[in-house]
Amino acid sequence: MEIDLSKPILDRNERLAAENRARFDAAGVFVLDMMASPGAGKTSTILATIAALRDRYRIAVIEGDIASKVDAEKVKAHGIPAVQINTGGACHLESDMIRRAVDALPLDELDLIIIENVGNLVCPTDFNLGENAKVMILSVPEGHDKPYKYPGIFQVSEAVILNKVDVMPYFDFDEEEFTGVVKSLNPKAPIFRIAATKGEGVQAWAEWLAARIDAAKVGLGSTS
Amino acid sequence: MEIDLSKPILDRNERLAAENRARFDAAGVFVLDMMASPGAGKTSTILATIAALRDRYRIAVIEGDIASKVDAEKVKAHGIPAVQINTGGACHLESDMIRRAVDALPLDELDLIIIENVGNLVCPTDFNLGENAKVMILSVPEGHDKPYKYPGIFQVSEAVILNKVDVMPYFDFDEEEFTGVVKSLNPKAPIFRIAATKGEGVQAWAEWLAARIDAAKVGLGSTS
Repeated sequence: MEIDLSKPILDRNERLAAENRARFDAAGVFVLDMMASPGAGKTSTILATIAALRDRYRIAVIEGDIASKVDAEKVKAHGIPAVQINTGGACHLESDMIRRAVDALPLDELDLIIIENVGNLVCPTDFNLGENAKVMILSVPEGHDKPYKYPGIFQVSEAVILNKVDVMPYFDFDEEEFTGVVKSLNPKAPIFRIAATKGEGVQAWAEWLAARIDAAKVGLGSTS
Repeated sequence: MEIDLSKPILDRNERLAAENRARFDAAGVFVLDMMASPGAGKTSTILATIAALRDRYRIAVIEGDIASKVDAEKVKAHGIPAVQINTGGACHLESDMIRRAVDALPLDELDLIIIENVGNLVCPTDFNLGENAKVMILSVPEGHDKPYKYPGIFQVSEAVILNKVDVMPYFDFDEEEFTGVVKSLNPKAPIFRIAATKGEGVQAWAEWLAARIDAAKVGLGSTS
């Protein structure tokens, strides 16, 4: 437990993350890293976000999974460019995986890249990918106690999406307690209540994201 | 991605796992490693398993979490010895954490230790803790496609528990497809359908576990 072999990996990842970010900034692309447990609804939320914003922004998706192409195929079915990364066992994405995925995308023709990280509330937290913002999703069936158990991911996220609020009546989810703990861990992060598969609540989340994208473009002096 | 720093960690873990296992065998204790995503219902399933088996076996629980003592407190409230491990960031339990936790338990007065691993479908898969069996839980809200995305955990588990079957009507969960993929990954593993918080289906799972515990005791020549 005292052996820390992670530092050289993290240092290398940070260096490559800075390179990714410079490349994104130069192209005027905003990059979002979407994190959540397996089955919290990352892909559904991404599809709902695309539906809300595709008239305003040119969007692509990078899908991260241990195995399978299920998610990239779902995204492509909506006419959105998507690249699938299979980590082959790794529990999170790293910057060099993103670099190679971006090589397969028309970067100059995009405004927004959404990265769907591997389903995991722990490992993705420590890995900067060069993104502009990390955002996390918790789904109601996972339970309101998750911020106690996985505080790190709630702290690094700039916004928290609470998904599957439509099934709240069937679960013992104490939303007041959840909100209180999230606010204590991360007072600035807004919490968006959504039901991604039904499109409920997606607009408020999408407008927050749009404001972030537009602010980044102004900051970069981009004219697009 | 080509740098593999994990081998020395895994080798050391295997050595300590063998030491743990020798200790468990000598004491005649069966050890179960319970794995699942955050919020799949590990603690609820453990509590339901305790309720089903506490008249037959002397049980203790080792709880693994990044942070918090929530789960150990829940177990102790039922009069069952419980030790909480906080990994402080690590996404899985390792053998030396288990060794230290076991030091805090009355090993000679136990028949069964249930380890609740950190909520994660990836990292716990690679770490032998000295347990007799690994078992995993998937909950209905996570979706039927998870075996495609996280095949490893379905392959190392000796049984698969499908939890929260009571909310099946509210989710788009294709149970036939789920069962088919699990069987293709791991033909021998039984799948137990349960609703842990309601006690539904728990008896069949508990009987499978009891048969494994009894078989191990016979194998060890234990007379308890």
